[in-house]
Amino acid sequence: MAIPYLHANSYLENLLRERDQQELSEALRPKPEQPAKPRLPRDHRINSKMLARRWELFADQNGIREQILDPATEATMDVYQHNIENFIGTVKLPVGVAGPLRVNGLFAQGDYYIPLATTEAALVASYNRGAQLISRAGGCTTLLLQEAVMRAPGFAFENLTQAGTFVAWAITQIEQFKIEASKTTRHGQLHDMQVTVEGNHVYLRFDFTTGDASGQNMVTIATQSICEYIRLNSPVEPSYFFLEANMSGDKKASAQSFVSVRGKQVTAEVTVPSDLIHGLLHTSPERMEDYWRMSALGGVLSGTIGVQGHYANGLAALYIACGQDAACVAESAVGVTRFELTDQGDLYAAVTLPNLIVGTVGGGTGLPSQNACLQLLGLAGAGHARAFAEVTAATVLAGELSIIGALCAGHFARAHQSLARG
Amino acid sequence: MAIPYLHANSYLENLLRERDQQELSEALRPKPEQPAKPRLPRDHRINSKMLARRWELFADQNGIREQILDPATEATMDVYQHNIENFIGTVKLPVGVAGPLRVNGLFAQGDYYIPLATTEAALVASYNRGAQLISRAGGCTTLLLQEAVMRAPGFAFENLTQAGTFVAWAITQIEQFKIEASKTTRHGQLHDMQVTVEGNHVYLRFDFTTGDASGQNMVTIATQSICEYIRLNSPVEPSYFFLEANMSGDKKASAQSFVSVRGKQVTAEVTVPSDLIHGLLHTSPERMEDYWRMSALGGVLSGTIGVQGHYANGLAALYIACGQDAACVAESAVGVTRFELTDQGDLYAAVTLPNLIVGTVGGGTGLPSQNACLQLLGLAGAGHARAFAEVTAATVLAGELSIIGALCAGHFARAHQSLARG
Amino acid sequence: MAIPYLHANSYLENLLRERDQQELSEALRPKPEQPAKPRLPRDHRINSKMLARRWELFADQNGIREQILDPATEATMDVYQHNIENFIGTVKLPVGVAGPLRVNGLFAQGDYYIPLATTEAALVASYNRGAQLISRAGGCTTLLLQEAVMRAPGFAFENLTQAGTFVAWAITQIEQFKIEASKTTRHGQLHDMQVTVEGNHVYLRFDFTTGDASGQNMVTIATQSICEYIRLNSPVEPSYFFLEANMSGDKKASAQSFVSVRGKQVTAEVTVPSDLIHGLLHTSPERMEDYWRMSALGGVLSGTIGVQGHYANGLAALYIACGQDAACVAESAVGVTRFELTDQGDLYAAVTLPNLIVGTVGGGTGLPSQNACLQLLGLAGAGHARAFAEVTAATVLAGELSIIGALCAGHFARAHQSLARG
Amino acid sequence: MAIPYLHANSYLENLLRERDQQELSEALRPKPEQPAKPRLPRDHRINSKMLARRWELFADQNGIREQILDPATEATMDVYQHNIENFIGTVKLPVGVAGPLRVNGLFAQGDYYIPLATTEAALVASYNRGAQLISRAGGCTTLLLQEAVMRAPGFAFENLTQAGTFVAWAITQIEQFKIEASKTTRHGQLHDMQVTVEGNHVYLRFDFTTGDASGQNMVTIATQSICEYIRLNSPVEPSYFFLEANMSGDKKASAQSFVSVRGKQVTAEVTVPSDLIHGLLHTSPERMEDYWRMSALGGVLSGTIGVQGHYANGLAALYIACGQDAACVAESAVGVTRFELTDQGDLYAAVTLPNLIVGTVGGGTGLPSQNACLQLLGLAGAGHARAFAEVTAATVLAGELSIIGALCAGHFARAHQSLARG
Repeated sequence: MAIPYLHANSYLENLLRERDQQELSEALRPKPEQPAKPRLPRDHRINSKMLARRWELFADQNGIREQILDPATEATMDVYQHNIENFIGTVKLPVGVAGPLRVNGLFAQGDYYIPLATTEAALVASYNRGAQLISRAGGCTTLLLQEAVMRAPGFAFENLTQAGTFVAWAITQIEQFKIEASKTTRHGQLHDMQVTVEGNHVYLRFDFTTGDASGQNMVTIATQSICEYIRLNSPVEPSYFFLEANMSGDKKASAQSFVSVRGKQVTAEVTVPSDLIHGLLHTSPERMEDYWRMSALGGVLSGTIGVQGHYANGLAALYIACGQDAACVAESAVGVTRFELTDQGDLYAAVTLPNLIVGTVGGGTGLPSQNACLQLLGLAGAGHARAFAEVTAATVLAGELSIIGALCAGHFARAHQSLARG
Repeated sequence: MAIPYLHANSYLENLLRERDQQELSEALRPKPEQPAKPRLPRDHRINSKMLARRWELFADQNGIREQILDPATEATMDVYQHNIENFIGTVKLPVGVAGPLRVNGLFAQGDYYIPLATTEAALVASYNRGAQLISRAGGCTTLLLQEAVMRAPGFAFENLTQAGTFVAWAITQIEQFKIEASKTTRHGQLHDMQVTVEGNHVYLRFDFTTGDASGQNMVTIATQSICEYIRLNSPVEPSYFFLEANMSGDKKASAQSFVSVRGKQVTAEVTVPSDLIHGLLHTSPERMEDYWRMSALGGVLSGTIGVQGHYANGLAALYIACGQDAACVAESAVGVTRFELTDQGDLYAAVTLPNLIVGTVGGGTGLPSQNACLQLLGLAGAGHARAFAEVTAATVLAGELSIIGALCAGHFARAHQSLARG
Repeated sequence: MAIPYLHANSYLENLLRERDQQELSEALRPKPEQPAKPRLPRDHRINSKMLARRWELFADQNGIREQILDPATEATMDVYQHNIENFIGTVKLPVGVAGPLRVNGLFAQGDYYIPLATTEAALVASYNRGAQLISRAGGCTTLLLQEAVMRAPGFAFENLTQAGTFVAWAITQIEQFKIEASKTTRHGQLHDMQVTVEGNHVYLRFDFTTGDASGQNMVTIATQSICEYIRLNSPVEPSYFFLEANMSGDKKASAQSFVSVRGKQVTAEVTVPSDLIHGLLHTSPERMEDYWRMSALGGVLSGTIGVQGHYANGLAALYIACGQDAACVAESAVGVTRFELTDQGDLYAAVTLPNLIVGTVGGGTGLPSQNACLQLLGLAGAGHARAFAEVTAATVLAGELSIIGALCAGHFARAHQSLARG
Repeated sequence: MAIPYLHANSYLENLLRERDQQELSEALRPKPEQPAKPRLPRDHRINSKMLARRWELFADQNGIREQILDPATEATMDVYQHNIENFIGTVKLPVGVAGPLRVNGLFAQGDYYIPLATTEAALVASYNRGAQLISRAGGCTTLLLQEAVMRAPGFAFENLTQAGTFVAWAITQIEQFKIEASKTTRHGQLHDMQVTVEGNHVYLRFDFTTGDASGQNMVTIATQSICEYIRLNSPVEPSYFFLEANMSGDKKASAQSFVSVRGKQVTAEVTVPSDLIHGLLHTSPERMEDYWRMSALGGVLSGTIGVQGHYANGLAALYIACGQDAACVAESAVGVTRFELTDQGDLYAAVTLPNLIVGTVGGGTGLPSQNACLQLLGLAGAGHARAFAEVTAATVLAGELSIIGALCAGHFARAHQSLARG
């Protein structure tokens, strides 16, 4: 966040050219005395009356209402009842398709058409090219390696002795904690617990499997139940405790999630014959290895968690299309990409993503257009979460191959220029 | 990514219960011999013919086509022409509103209704509660502190001496680089350059201002032009070079972007009187400070970049609603949240976000429903990017206050349970 | 590593003022043609003859030989036989004492005089002040929480399927690996294994307890034995493998070691009454809490692993005095310091160090002056490593309290000025 | 710091086998009532009387006094007067020599004998082997790239508006700050300032050059003077401020120091012909590249700052021998190692260390045995700090080559076994 003083100086000069310091101070001060715009109605549910009352608050210039609350949205608004509050309509994101992408996985098998929702030109074209490359090489191998979703309540005690006493008790209660968790969900299971002692603070990290749901709500409710049990049974009462003390890795990239797991961990690999690299990407395996070396160190030199190119692009587009929680891109977009020249002169490429937060039930997966995208993939509903995770990793691999190919061939800027500017 | 062997063991046992190792190996091997599903047409543009040919490829069971390619989408498909390839329709995300949110900023001034697109229940309700809290405290102060978007080409040389010769030349060429950049854009300006030497590799990081656009394409094209100049004029020829060598922080959380800036850096603060905390959040400033302490260390203990609660939630919802690049949540969702009890017993709360990638022109901001959301905010089009960045930080502050309030009051699980499960 | 171009420019100008670019290139080029200074004798053992031959190589101006190879060192040189090669004498570091420091630990009990070897003025005085503060508060509580030393061999395979087959086998061999390890050491035990799959690469991380030794050599030799077993028995032959693939955290700060453990993890805490803070440190618990908040975020803002003040000072001084491996300061100097105002207005202070690499046998602990320091502590030899780890954490806590006190009281610069400049 | 509950469980069971929980609680509680061991005399200076009084406090069993306070040390104790307090004698570390090491640097030129103080067997032998390898390849090229030592005071204000006002003033005062700094030192110069605003907190990071001193005290005293100027002249008074708010990177590895600089940044490279790799290291350039790839990712996977093998070993040994601050190993032991096969089949190897904290005057550099080591290097006293930094990087390069060679040849465990166990 540091600002070189020279930059700060020129920025300030620009500011003060337009307004003096008193005007700036006036702009910045809290203004409790000024009348407020009208509040939204208390009732945040979806129905015609509330929708009308909300829209009354906004000046409807330029027909913005009909863009957000178009007739089709209005007609079907009930489907969003359990997904949002203070509903005023929908935003529409264009969906493009990449594929078919052949996946040879533990759980995913066959050729997939990948729906990607994005407003960024060149993205779908690039993933599509990568998918072709992989498929023509016989498909990529994918391996789901482990899975767990965490919640991490924190407990404060008077001193280390009390904290220690609490820990000594808690580590004997895992079976009871499992029972408490199981009372709240049929699909999730507590399967491990980690204990962190920092002075008189204790964090318990509960690791759950969550079936076919991405599972954040499931583990929240299960952990609530465990905490209630702790509150009633702990031999020592905490000064205070919180259901989540920011150690679960929820909604953020973290070293902890990266070095262990959060959600689902998948590796995907493919060996692409040299002639395909030349033919489809217009570069060579050698140059792509050069790129990998320099870009992996580019990641290291800029202090990323893991080293990779642009996982976030594919993840965001696939997550949005398929009703996943787009905020989880923050935690999912880490991992390791490796490109390597084989002894035969072909290109070995692999991606490993340890923090995929995906599900095929719950969240936004049941909404009409999102569910349709999952169906287009052939992965809607129960029984498909692991396959979906593997397809996600395969998609990310396609993206890495294509973008790095473009950077090696010198086409990167050109693609963006021609597709985005028309 | 490490897997405890006990977990690996039980996972494997489950796998092998259903399939033996030979079946697993067969599943995983590349299968170039198997016939592929049909490829997408080469022409990736949007028109009725191509759309029809694409949809022919997918089995339209369950009416998925009409969910994705609904009549309204089909009628207006041309608007997406420069935003996507291989278009097949749209995905609809529900939009809810939080606010009004009072912002006393350098660039944002007044009460804003915040459009949030999400499929996660409780999110909008929570941000709305935070917005009320802030507004009733007179609004939050916001300060845009600096801005820059980077591209970082990498150059490989034979040895350190050549690398040094190149650097000695490049650092004298900044004015020429600015001229080259200016040939490609009226809105963006090269304003700084950083040089990294790692052995015989040199990374140049170009820092641009990008006007009201988020600017990634702008800086790509400008850097392409600079690289072309370098190629023609450098006193020493690189063995190879790449337009982007993964040191720009694009699409990923990085320590470098966090300790300097990427996009726009904004701080937002508010002091909330104790009675508002009690009345609206049902907890106390003291307990919220306790939470901050424990959760800030929770972030530290889990190795996050910065310490914060759930910036990604608000960022993803606002980015999607307003036509921003949702993939940039990966880089934007870092920063520092601080809560502190004041001497008067009130709650001081601040968020600082150094990596906001936002714009009010370009990308998805011109699409109908996205532009309507920007208009609802009053921030569509040129001249509004800095205000939008400040409103974004204010929104994030609202979210931190509300979620931490819920965790302190013990309402966190309850809210998710009641809103998500109906 | 990035260099702002303006800095690079002025640095280069200075360089070129003295030498032109050709002179610089000549300076930098490899010079295989130039005659070399004489090589050291092949025999790197310690005896008078070799010592003489080595010293013949160096110009003995200014009596440097007698400073390094003083008569006492020469007389006792045999004691260093298994600790160094190409021996030429000793370097002498002054040792100061801090204490007595009262420790109420699981393993350490009582009042300790802490020997600290350093050449940095003010360091011992500061730790001594912290020790007094802690002791007058009744001593600090220390808790050794876990211990493990790692080795992490890496195995490369042709593809993911082979890698998976290898892992499926390896996770069933843990008992056999324990047997192999036990053949090489009576003191160390393999007690856990972690598996990391990154594409066709597999890293196995073996976690050992190492008795009273710091244990790096012990785990190296044990892992060598396990690798030999793997080589002979694995169902699939790796393309290549390495005994250590840089995933053990050896000799470097790492997020992995921080979020789990490396060596020994200890927490130490003390509650210091307000009047002691005022009387001894000339500041207040309130101000020290203010400092903690700002400095913890200072750590976060600069991207440290954990947040702490200056663990490295105490660790380096204690490690050197007591024959520990000083290079391990790199990995040990991470952790979390927390200062907090209690409801009674006193100061709660805690440090948690997850990566203490310490032992009371082996390495340099048996050398005469180092062993004497351990004896002064009362912790020489077998049976004392855990107590030594707790005393180490207590020492670090003393240092944090004292330096932060000095920074709060405005004495920080003064202390350095008066003690270092005399 | 997280502990798997199974490990916690078995650890606790072991504990409770020996002592019940009440005994444990008694052990851990503060014990202000128990009589304390005698305190050290208040006078912490070095003289015979004080020395005698200190030694009276310790039970002199086993002749520990004569090991620490040997006659030679006692005779020359005055030399340590400004380097330590509460002096009781010296600890002796054996010094071995590696080399000659040929360095073709901007500042270092020629063949150096490298003194290394360590108690770890095999270390000197390994660095010596690496030095031979480099020298026979014509020496390594080294490039000092930039230098700066930081201090980072922190200032707290009531709100963001005050903080902004302060910053607006501070960035105009850089010339005055330079004058203030120059009043305290002839050797150090303020040359840049970075501003970080986190809510109502402002951190100023002052970057100094420090001549031939490592410079931490110099920058502390200069910053004290600047802070005093700020206190007297700032247009807005901070609620409180601290001379150092933990953002300078002092005594800790940090991403900030890594992505910019702290102390001195040096790159060293060498291209080693294939036959030398085979002849001296008994492995091949190909295998060493394989090792680099796997170990670089091992570093990434374990979340290190930069990627390297064991910089800390060489740094600690060289720092201790040459009177550097050994605690700075914590911050110096980060960087990037790269090994790469050349088109000719040789091995390109480079190390880049951005955080070398070294000096040839001040600190421990003037002590007799330490200064003798610097003289042995030919780098004692003023005018040599930059050359010393380059020699340090060259030494580190030698260490990386040798240890990786050993790991590739399968000799790693053997070397430790034979040298350490005799």
